[in-house]
Amino acid sequence: MMRKAWISGSQPSHPWQTNAEKTVRTDNMSQQNRISMEHGAGGQFMQELIGGIILKNISRRSAGTVGLDDLDDGSTISIPEGMGDDYELVMTTDSHVVDPLFFPGGDIGRIAVCGTVNDLTVMGAKPLALTCAIIVPEGFELSSFEEIIKSMNLAAEEAEVAIITGDTKTIQGNKLDSMIINTTGVGVAPKVVRDNGLSPDDVIIVTGNLGDHGIALLSHREGFDFETKLVSDVAPVSGLLKAPLELRTEDGQPVICAMKDPTRGGLASCINEMAQKSDVGIILEESDIPIDMVVSTACEMLGLNPLEIANEGKAVIGVRPEYAEQVLELLKSHKYGLNARIVGKAVSEHKGKVLLRTSIGSLRQLGMPVGDPIPRVC
Amino acid sequence: MMRKAWISGSQPSHPWQTNAEKTVRTDNMSQQNRISMEHGAGGQFMQELIGGIILKNISRRSAGTVGLDDLDDGSTISIPEGMGDDYELVMTTDSHVVDPLFFPGGDIGRIAVCGTVNDLTVMGAKPLALTCAIIVPEGFELSSFEEIIKSMNLAAEEAEVAIITGDTKTIQGNKLDSMIINTTGVGVAPKVVRDNGLSPDDVIIVTGNLGDHGIALLSHREGFDFETKLVSDVAPVSGLLKAPLELRTEDGQPVICAMKDPTRGGLASCINEMAQKSDVGIILEESDIPIDMVVSTACEMLGLNPLEIANEGKAVIGVRPEYAEQVLELLKSHKYGLNARIVGKAVSEHKGKVLLRTSIGSLRQLGMPVGDPIPRVC
Repeated sequence: MMRKAWISGSQPSHPWQTNAEKTVRTDNMSQQNRISMEHGAGGQFMQELIGGIILKNISRRSAGTVGLDDLDDGSTISIPEGMGDDYELVMTTDSHVVDPLFFPGGDIGRIAVCGTVNDLTVMGAKPLALTCAIIVPEGFELSSFEEIIKSMNLAAEEAEVAIITGDTKTIQGNKLDSMIINTTGVGVAPKVVRDNGLSPDDVIIVTGNLGDHGIALLSHREGFDFETKLVSDVAPVSGLLKAPLELRTEDGQPVICAMKDPTRGGLASCINEMAQKSDVGIILEESDIPIDMVVSTACEMLGLNPLEIANEGKAVIGVRPEYAEQVLELLKSHKYGLNARIVGKAVSEHKGKVLLRTSIGSLRQLGMPVGDPIPRVC
Repeated sequence: MMRKAWISGSQPSHPWQTNAEKTVRTDNMSQQNRISMEHGAGGQFMQELIGGIILKNISRRSAGTVGLDDLDDGSTISIPEGMGDDYELVMTTDSHVVDPLFFPGGDIGRIAVCGTVNDLTVMGAKPLALTCAIIVPEGFELSSFEEIIKSMNLAAEEAEVAIITGDTKTIQGNKLDSMIINTTGVGVAPKVVRDNGLSPDDVIIVTGNLGDHGIALLSHREGFDFETKLVSDVAPVSGLLKAPLELRTEDGQPVICAMKDPTRGGLASCINEMAQKSDVGIILEESDIPIDMVVSTACEMLGLNPLEIANEGKAVIGVRPEYAEQVLELLKSHKYGLNARIVGKAVSEHKGKVLLRTSIGSLRQLGMPVGDPIPRVC
């Protein structure tokens, strides 16, 4: 609990100093620029970390009557009005380990918030609240720590989700080499959307270009120099999918009948899982799958399949066929959906399999990625 | 997400083997007795870990229509009936790092479940669902991994809480030296109980002997040989507090007006925080505070204050005075409350301070523990 380490043993600071004390203070300051074991031990250091860096930089701190500022044993969430009678809560968790922590287009903080927001969203839920549990090795730079918290805040603001409670553990530098952030989220879904809801003739939409995150991270980490700067797509999809998720068929069901976010293993993993769980076949039109030219070039050079590359700001959507154009238009009117495309449809044959129709009209199977995803970025 | 790594790249197992294959298989098996990076990579290893160890050993896997077995992007929680009109959800998170992972009376798995269950309970909530995010270094023994999952399951069964979704990350052994478990919980509270709800004359109750967890862990870790075997108190307090939390005053308010669990920093930290946040003084009768003789002897020998030692299965409760005896009786009728005691009361003087009345009648202050808790066990 954040609370545990927050109150205990706070000592007064000394605003007035002699020169000699100032010298000592400077030494202390240079220590204070990095995480020490004391930051996890209660007392002034922990107070500075929690109050001075975490609370100060998070702007949505409450989703009920007890919030982050209260530093109680937990926080509360009030269910918003107008959720109908048969809503459910949705809960999801993910521990984030990212190498490097900062990359073009984002950092571990933005991924931690977006990853959990997106998992809630693709289940049909409006994200209400996140927890944030940080594990950080001693020696970690406080300025980087603050930058990551600020990044979490920007993503949380964008997704309109509160960060209501947290936990900070410091670990000796010889026992852990980098930061780990767990975010767990709760959302509320008037109608839960599953990954197994496809029926034959349902239309498959992807909300934008595929592979940007994995290739941007790989390029940055390995120092590859592609002609155009590649940027990760890491973003919350909650705003993008808000209007489409509210659409209902004539009999009151969501027109989005299945959804998933194509993170690790990319579209290939995601769409195969949807086909298997829904017990339908899926035919994708290869030439309709949106991929940035830089990503496809990079993948060709590196021998990678862009359909197996991770994304952090996309969704793969199954839509009832008569509503596909309407959903597509809604997606394309949002900044994160400009490149949304209809890429294929579910069929009653080829159950559990995904087939790519190539530009010359032949069909080949898009298999589930095997083994360790390359690049291993999430 | 557990899901991500669960489906991809599963390969068929080979039940029929030649002798030669058996030899190879034996080698594989010895590798398979430890966590490898492949356990986090999708494919057969991950499938064995999730299906063969995690799902198999967790018996409460659902709190709504989508549960652990569905391996979707998250799981759902249905609010139980009869919660009234103004309930709130309570959410709490904690990452658990325990050294050693196994100790007399428990292990990291039991602590991970109980710690989060207890945080929900002391907020007045009935625990509904937990997430479990495990980070494990390569080389970790699979038998220990399974033992920890089984222990989580026993604690979850005891607390009647489902483990509905999870995440497993494997990290190279040179980057992390031991297992970390994050548990995040959601509960539902008809009336939220805060740590700031004390008024003058409220009675303070502790639910049992203090210091058992910290001293048991310390003794085991350091090899101290105390006369009687000490055992950690790690336990869920949800059952113990169920009946007392349902008691209402004549005007419909909870008779439990404030509550907290005395984990890190022990009773001293917990009760000082309650005094400060409630803006009351608290006077504790030193001779009424229940401490096992072995713990008090060990603390005397080691120069530790038993009131600053961590507990993992206790609560510190503020009760409206006219209901104190009734709450005490309810507590004492439960196996985890046999040693429950009234230990003091809130007063209007000494605001924000805690005073111990010694056996000779003098008052001395019980301060907030300063600096790193000794022993550092949680």
